[in-house]
Amino acid sequence: MLANIRVVLVQTYHPGNIGASARAMKTMGLTDLVLVNPRCFPDPEASRLAAGAEDVIDSARVVTSLKEAVSDCVQVVGASARLRSLPLPHFDEPEAMARELVDNADDPVALVFGRERFGLTNDEIRCCSHQVSIPANPGYGILNLAQAVQVLAYETFKAWRQRPESDYRQPRPAEERQPTREQLEHFHEHLSRVMRQSGFLTQPHARTETQLQALFARAQPSRKELSLLRGLLRSLEPDTAVTRSTSEDDRT
Amino acid sequence: MLANIRVVLVQTYHPGNIGASARAMKTMGLTDLVLVNPRCFPDPEASRLAAGAEDVIDSARVVTSLKEAVSDCVQVVGASARLRSLPLPHFDEPEAMARELVDNADDPVALVFGRERFGLTNDEIRCCSHQVSIPANPGYGILNLAQAVQVLAYETFKAWRQRPESDYRQPRPAEERQPTREQLEHFHEHLSRVMRQSGFLTQPHARTETQLQALFARAQPSRKELSLLRGLLRSLEPDTAVTRSTSEDDRT
Repeated sequence: MLANIRVVLVQTYHPGNIGASARAMKTMGLTDLVLVNPRCFPDPEASRLAAGAEDVIDSARVVTSLKEAVSDCVQVVGASARLRSLPLPHFDEPEAMARELVDNADDPVALVFGRERFGLTNDEIRCCSHQVSIPANPGYGILNLAQAVQVLAYETFKAWRQRPESDYRQPRPAEERQPTREQLEHFHEHLSRVMRQSGFLTQPHARTETQLQALFARAQPSRKELSLLRGLLRSLEPDTAVTRSTSEDDRT
Repeated sequence: MLANIRVVLVQTYHPGNIGASARAMKTMGLTDLVLVNPRCFPDPEASRLAAGAEDVIDSARVVTSLKEAVSDCVQVVGASARLRSLPLPHFDEPEAMARELVDNADDPVALVFGRERFGLTNDEIRCCSHQVSIPANPGYGILNLAQAVQVLAYETFKAWRQRPESDYRQPRPAEERQPTREQLEHFHEHLSRVMRQSGFLTQPHARTETQLQALFARAQPSRKELSLLRGLLRSLEPDTAVTRSTSEDDRT
C-alpha cells in the first residue's frame, strides 16, 4: 500500500533537495519518486544527500509534465504554501490528508511538491484533485522542500501504521517484565513493615502508605527494579541491622 | 509559551545542520536555540542554510554541557533513534510528547537532539526526563538532524495551536461566501424545472433529484458558483431555447 504512494517533485532546482527528499521518503517507507523536468538529474549532489536512500534515487522516473506523472492516480494532493488559488478541496491538516490518501492507496495516489521558489503553477494545481498546506508560523511559514516532504511523508506513515493491515510494530527492546499484583503487594507490605520497625510510621493505615503506593504506581517498576527495591528494604530492616551489629560485636 | 520551548543541539558536526534546524524551528514558531559544544559555530554555512532564520542563529547560545543547557527546564525530552538504554519514560508518539511538552511550557522545557552519527551518550540521556522516537521505516529509520527537528517542531506547533490561548488562525484568503439555504433551494427548484421541461424527468419526486441534491451538497458550491450554475440553467431552459430558435427562425 505504501508502494502506491508516489512523491512527485516538479522542476526541482537544487539536486541536493532531490537527494534529501528521497532520504525523507525512505525514512517513512515511501519509494516511488517521479521527477518532472528536474534542472539537474542525475547528479552527484542528489546521491550524496540521499545518504542511504540511493535506491529511491536510482529508481526515480523522469517525466516532462505533471500530467504525465499523475495520470494513473486516483488522488493527487498538491502541497502548497501559497494561498489557494483554485477552489480545490483543501486540507488544512496534513493528518486528515494522510488518512484520506492512505484510504485511497489501493490505487496509485500522489503527493506533489512544487519548485523551491514558486511552488506550483495554476495549470499544475489543476492536475491535482486536492491541496494541502502544512500549518506553520504565519510570519515565516516556508519549509525547505525536503522538510515539507519529510512532514507529509511522516503523516502518511503515521496514517498507514494505524491500519490493521500495516502490521507495524514499534521496534523496541523486549519490555522488562512487569511485576504481578501479588509481587507489588508483597513489596508494599515489606515497605510498611520497614517503616514501622524504624519508627517512621507510628499508626496503622497511615496516609503516608497510600501516598507512597501512588508514587510507585506512577513509576511502574519492572520486576527487576522491584527486586532491587526489596533488596534495599531487606538491608534496611532492623532485624538485618541487628544481625550486622551482632556480627560486628562478634568481631570486637 | 512557544518562547519557553527550547531546542538543544548537542555537538553538531555539520554547521549546515545547525542552519537547517534553525529554519525548521522558525517555520514552527520556535526561537530558543542552545548549542552544546558545536564543532564549528558561528559558520557561514549555518547562516546560509538558515535562509531567513538568521535571527534564530544569531541569538543562539553556546554552552559546554547538556546539563548547563537544560538546568532551568522542567521537562527535557531527548530525541533518540536508538533503542532506549535507560528506563526513562519513553514517548513512541511525537504527538503525545508534544501535548505534554506544551502543557509544561509555562516554564522552560527542552527538546534535545544528539550528534549526527551517534546521538546522545548515556550520560546525556541521564540529563533528560523523557525520551521520544519518531516512528519510521524499521529498515531505514534515521532522519537527518534538521528533519528530526522539523518533525518534532511541527508536532509541537500543532499541539500549541490546539490550545485556546494560542489564538492561532490558519492564514487563508477570505472564504467565498456560502449560499443561504434559500438560495440552494431556488437552485434545486430551477434544476428540477429544467430537467422536467427538457423531458429528462417524467415523474414527480424522482430519485434522480435526490441524487443530484446529494452531489451538490458534497460539492458545496459557493454563492458565486451557484450563480454560475443558475446562469447555465437559464441558458438551457426551453423558454430560452424557444427564444433562440425563434431568433434563428427569424434569421432564416
